[in-house]
Amino acid sequence: MSSTVLDLAVIEGDGIGHEVVPQGLRVLEAALEGSGIEVRTTGYDLGAGRWHRTGETLTDQDMEALAQHDAIVLGAVGDPDVPSGVLERGLLLKLRFGFDHFVNLRPTRLVPGVSSPLADPGEVDFLVVREGTEGPYVGNGGAMRVGTDLEVATEVSLNTAVGVERVVRYAFAQAERRRKKLTLVHKHNVLVHAGHLWRRIVERVGAEHPDVAVDYAHVDAATIYMVTDPSRFDVIVTDNLFGDILTDLAAAIGGGIGLAASANINPTGDFPSMFEPVHGSAPDIAGQGLADPTATVLSVALLLDHLGHAEAAGRVRAAVDADLAVRADLGARSTSEVGNALVAAVRSA
Amino acid sequence: MSSTVLDLAVIEGDGIGHEVVPQGLRVLEAALEGSGIEVRTTGYDLGAGRWHRTGETLTDQDMEALAQHDAIVLGAVGDPDVPSGVLERGLLLKLRFGFDHFVNLRPTRLVPGVSSPLADPGEVDFLVVREGTEGPYVGNGGAMRVGTDLEVATEVSLNTAVGVERVVRYAFAQAERRRKKLTLVHKHNVLVHAGHLWRRIVERVGAEHPDVAVDYAHVDAATIYMVTDPSRFDVIVTDNLFGDILTDLAAAIGGGIGLAASANINPTGDFPSMFEPVHGSAPDIAGQGLADPTATVLSVALLLDHLGHAEAAGRVRAAVDADLAVRADLGARSTSEVGNALVAAVRSA
Ligand SMILES: CC(C)[C@H](C(=O)O)[C@@H](O)C(=O)O
Ligand SMILES: CC(C)[C@H](C(=O)O)[C@@H](O)C(=O)O
Repeated sequence: MSSTVLDLAVIEGDGIGHEVVPQGLRVLEAALEGSGIEVRTTGYDLGAGRWHRTGETLTDQDMEALAQHDAIVLGAVGDPDVPSGVLERGLLLKLRFGFDHFVNLRPTRLVPGVSSPLADPGEVDFLVVREGTEGPYVGNGGAMRVGTDLEVATEVSLNTAVGVERVVRYAFAQAERRRKKLTLVHKHNVLVHAGHLWRRIVERVGAEHPDVAVDYAHVDAATIYMVTDPSRFDVIVTDNLFGDILTDLAAAIGGGIGLAASANINPTGDFPSMFEPVHGSAPDIAGQGLADPTATVLSVALLLDHLGHAEAAGRVRAAVDADLAVRADLGARSTSEVGNALVAAVRSA
Repeated sequence: MSSTVLDLAVIEGDGIGHEVVPQGLRVLEAALEGSGIEVRTTGYDLGAGRWHRTGETLTDQDMEALAQHDAIVLGAVGDPDVPSGVLERGLLLKLRFGFDHFVNLRPTRLVPGVSSPLADPGEVDFLVVREGTEGPYVGNGGAMRVGTDLEVATEVSLNTAVGVERVVRYAFAQAERRRKKLTLVHKHNVLVHAGHLWRRIVERVGAEHPDVAVDYAHVDAATIYMVTDPSRFDVIVTDNLFGDILTDLAAAIGGGIGLAASANINPTGDFPSMFEPVHGSAPDIAGQGLADPTATVLSVALLLDHLGHAEAAGRVRAAVDADLAVRADLGARSTSEVGNALVAAVRSA
């Protein structure tokens, strides 16, 4: 059997990133055992730690080095002593924008054994396809007369036909493989220019997918559906900011941010895609082995999907499902104990 | 007893607006019986109906006439045949912006008898103070090369120190009268210019209110708290768009949009404030007497509060609470039957 190499860049980041990422990588290796694929990892020291020591967030050399890998696994970055925006703009968003991660995939699945804050959640199994490189996230804002009574601050949402169409196409392709329903979420009654751009493109691309049922919800109404009727959703396609908001809400109803996975994908393959749990670095529990690695493990499943290893991805998800189903009976487990259980389950599947 | 006049402009609007507003006004009159205040109403024909007939949304003459009243009661506007954005921008937002309704008040209270989609909501009693005249709602966007592959669409969020400070001051004043907790919701790690403006002003005004505990949540995290721990909130102050999103979610967890009231307030008194249920015109159930007038009645309570009739407002809310507490046992009632019950309860209190 010819052996190929999966060459990963690993950014553990800060806090519990150092704990959850190693477990994610163990599960990845277990899932690829016997496949002839050898996983090689290169660690990158990025995040609050490095910023405190050097003042650097992400240099051009870092970007060039990262660009050589097949994919990136990221834990979580940040600590309370870094001013707001520094690592977000200088590291996380720089990666997403620099590597043109225009698809931000965030699945939500409520599985047996996991409790939702909803009294009657019903079937929860949907996928948010969040645009990742446009909208209010472009960093195109400014301020004048800062700190005075005459201060004016702006934030500009930039949206292009090309940028919207490529993510909408991706979303329709996902819907074709799922339950064939796509919901556009925007606020086109107020944000008329951006909203109507999204709407027209969804209509046009939708015409090429007559078997996909298309509907629309304003973002405010979408939050209502999310808590009263989440089973109405299959694939949601939405802008960068609305996707940020909806996916945190989705994570909450799907059992919490500790289970929420995400993939920042550049489907062209021109740059490596990046896989990260939705949760943060959780400085309050860091270093104690308390963090749940499940979101990272599910992000690894998205990585496997992305690289075409659907069978291995399926085994990882099945291992997680089986583990979640019995969790309530197992009592508290450490990060590595959960990792052990998942590795064993993936191997035995 | 000297008699004073409360001179109201009434915009029933469309759909169920025609059904719920009359009930709201009946309850208002009942609440003011014996107070020496005489309610006079002037109806304004505004909404989808007028637009279909005349192409007009809200003329300068309408604005001038409306400006003469003490306050405005609005039902709901819109129908599916009006293009998205026409009535929002041309009527609803024109009123909010034209009359400088910089405070958009939206209380959420989960009361006995009302079921929440949350399994374990706990005490839910908070007030969202949504900014009403700035942010992404200013209508400052545009598009070029519309309909081509090169289309670019923008939406600009405009935020001023004056605009933020006045609503933040209002929110702190509300917190002083409530449980003395204020949460700023924004996204200052990404929308750094607008976000840091809000943050600095909340800090500065907060220093004048040492007894109010201030905290902060990113809008994405706020949606998680809303479904996992809503009792943490007392007063939320936030921008126009985040407030729009959060208040729909809040309405859902507080028993549904059919109970959600709102007040668009200009605290200076230079222009009339406007009181409206959060729900829409609901064309699917319009004309059948099925609409629940409760949100309109609770909006009338906000009107009474605003005009200084706290005792009457309290009686209206108590009547609603009492009615909600027994609703489950009463079976289906028509719009006017609910109105009858509330009028009777207000009178007998
Ligand atoms: C940390 C922040 C920049 C980020 C975002 O807003 O996208 C996070 O909330 C997320 O959802 O991945
Ligand atoms: C109808 C629409 C313009 C409005 C808004 O976005 O403010 C509505 O959603 C609301 O919350 O009052």
